[in-house]
Amino acid sequence: MGDEHDPGRFLRACRRQPVDRTPVWFMRQAGRSLPEYRRARGNGDILEAATHPELVTELTLQPLRRYAVDAAILFSDIMVPLRAIGCPVRIVPDVGPVLDHPLGGAADIERLRPLEPEADIPSVIEAVTLVTRALEGRGIPLIGFAGAPFTVACYLVEGKPSRTFARVKSLMHTEPSTWQILADRLADIACAFLSAQVRAGARAVQLFDSWAGWLTPADYERFVLPVTARVLSELRALDVPTILFGVGTGELLALMASAGPDVVGIDWRVPIDVARSRLGANTAVQGNLDPAICLAPWEVVAAETRRVLQSAGTAPGHIFNLGHGVLPDTDPGILAAVADLVHQEGRSGASVAERDGIPAEGPDGAGGHQREARP
Amino acid sequence: MGDEHDPGRFLRACRRQPVDRTPVWFMRQAGRSLPEYRRARGNGDILEAATHPELVTELTLQPLRRYAVDAAILFSDIMVPLRAIGCPVRIVPDVGPVLDHPLGGAADIERLRPLEPEADIPSVIEAVTLVTRALEGRGIPLIGFAGAPFTVACYLVEGKPSRTFARVKSLMHTEPSTWQILADRLADIACAFLSAQVRAGARAVQLFDSWAGWLTPADYERFVLPVTARVLSELRALDVPTILFGVGTGELLALMASAGPDVVGIDWRVPIDVARSRLGANTAVQGNLDPAICLAPWEVVAAETRRVLQSAGTAPGHIFNLGHGVLPDTDPGILAAVADLVHQEGRSGASVAERDGIPAEGPDGAGGHQREARP
Repeated sequence: MGDEHDPGRFLRACRRQPVDRTPVWFMRQAGRSLPEYRRARGNGDILEAATHPELVTELTLQPLRRYAVDAAILFSDIMVPLRAIGCPVRIVPDVGPVLDHPLGGAADIERLRPLEPEADIPSVIEAVTLVTRALEGRGIPLIGFAGAPFTVACYLVEGKPSRTFARVKSLMHTEPSTWQILADRLADIACAFLSAQVRAGARAVQLFDSWAGWLTPADYERFVLPVTARVLSELRALDVPTILFGVGTGELLALMASAGPDVVGIDWRVPIDVARSRLGANTAVQGNLDPAICLAPWEVVAAETRRVLQSAGTAPGHIFNLGHGVLPDTDPGILAAVADLVHQEGRSGASVAERDGIPAEGPDGAGGHQREARP
Repeated sequence: MGDEHDPGRFLRACRRQPVDRTPVWFMRQAGRSLPEYRRARGNGDILEAATHPELVTELTLQPLRRYAVDAAILFSDIMVPLRAIGCPVRIVPDVGPVLDHPLGGAADIERLRPLEPEADIPSVIEAVTLVTRALEGRGIPLIGFAGAPFTVACYLVEGKPSRTFARVKSLMHTEPSTWQILADRLADIACAFLSAQVRAGARAVQLFDSWAGWLTPADYERFVLPVTARVLSELRALDVPTILFGVGTGELLALMASAGPDVVGIDWRVPIDVARSRLGANTAVQGNLDPAICLAPWEVVAAETRRVLQSAGTAPGHIFNLGHGVLPDTDPGILAAVADLVHQEGRSGASVAERDGIPAEGPDGAGGHQREARP
């Protein structure tokens, strides 16, 4: 795939530097929508699977054989470090993270000890090492990731995926000092988890604060922004770009940018031009094709992909992605075609000379990057 | 409760006219959080329950015995008119509306015949008549409601509550003319359902487009706004205020205002001052206390209630409400205290003289409107 992959396209866009073409990757690109993923992983526990370095390496690399994406993302789960320190969390298929005994108070929180990566997650470190070795010379960086304190706390305090987050919101307001201890411990775990991934070869990190958008801006600012800013500040020493992502965060974007990430990832609700105006000029933006649209026929997906590119415009600092993770029923051929279309037509951060150098392609979006896996 | 209830406080606020105190009601105030509701209704099918006029009257009036709310809302369900025209929809407890055979194509949509209120929903008409008779002289108007075309279509096309709305989004984009027929039929049903409620005595109507906020602004503008505007336009002849409500609609507010409602109801994500700036000066706003906050202790709820009132300010045109329906575990005493606090401290649309006429109350929020049901 040689010339399709500029070594630094993704990393440069994170830092709002010029690129030849808009970079692209897909949240959950390594996952259930790929038949080879289902074959390789079977039905076992996902947190257990994440402890097998060869399997993690295979699952992380699988999407790169199908899609001309500009970054790999480690196959893992935001609950991996929690399980590693003895938190009895399970991932229930079609449900999500479940704790039979949700965190109730200060004593439960005391048991969340610091993560010691070498001792606790040696298999993750080994997997990152194997993946980065496999990617060497291909110019595709690996993104490491972790759950942000608030989103991890949601699962720990609610005990299961919630639609209201009433328990965690109540904890914040009624026991702010307990909340602070919990958030600080989860921040330390996220920092240790991400640092270990970067030391082993990851070249960027994404902090998933998926449910932050369920908070009012006032609650986000008071209870979540400070601890998020601390995580991002500690990561700065690693000298890799940081991405802060959440769903439904339209009203939080200026606050999220003030937390100090290089990139803010947005869902499909906010047009990119609107997001840019709220984020300000110092933060790149990642997104934001509606993953549900990817279940529609190609003409629809192509039109919506073009709408995203148009909204992103030519200013630097756009990384194309979905607005949330790939849905399980997604046709991998559609995502392959999206990646190609983004490379053909995405102009965010491309200089005029580079834009002129890209040959015009037909409107069918299949372009010149056909690969065998496309149905 | 005599002097607590200004006859026109709610209706005047809908039209952005001066009021003595900020009016308040709660979405799903008639519902599962009330023990007397559970006793009266039992475990039967909710769509069946909605066909018993005496039961509907009792359930609609129950919250008025507990809360000093400024409006009643009919106990019903957005699927009532669909069931009435023969659509085999069921409400599954803890799940929501389910169709064993979701609407697949044009032939299914053909079967959605027009609603003929006198023949199809005589019990709803009788219930509205009974409720309005019971409210006579109490100065509390009844709000009628219906599901908006998009939100009803979500259930019909997905076959169950969805988190992605992938099928309905795909239908819009791939078969826009089929979508248009479906949306138009559901619009006609909503108009007929609401008109019947108004003719029987309802003095305002709320159109629930609960899931509109899951659409991109572009999709909302193209596929949902025109049919929503048509419904609101047809309702204008009824000469009652109209409220358009949805969750997660921050990016849609200007479009929703352009559909022509008197009031737009918002969830807790958008501060009211921000919402007002997007809605413009000609649309009132309803909301927006986070219903999850109502599960916290009173001091927290009081502080958050005050934050909403402060964000609403003194400009006319604010109706206090939750940002979504009352959660089942909510303590009714908390909602009673919220209503009282809003009346004591809510100044949206109040003239200076009226404001000065309101006696100062203690900060505990319990105020002078204690009623026996408060625990």
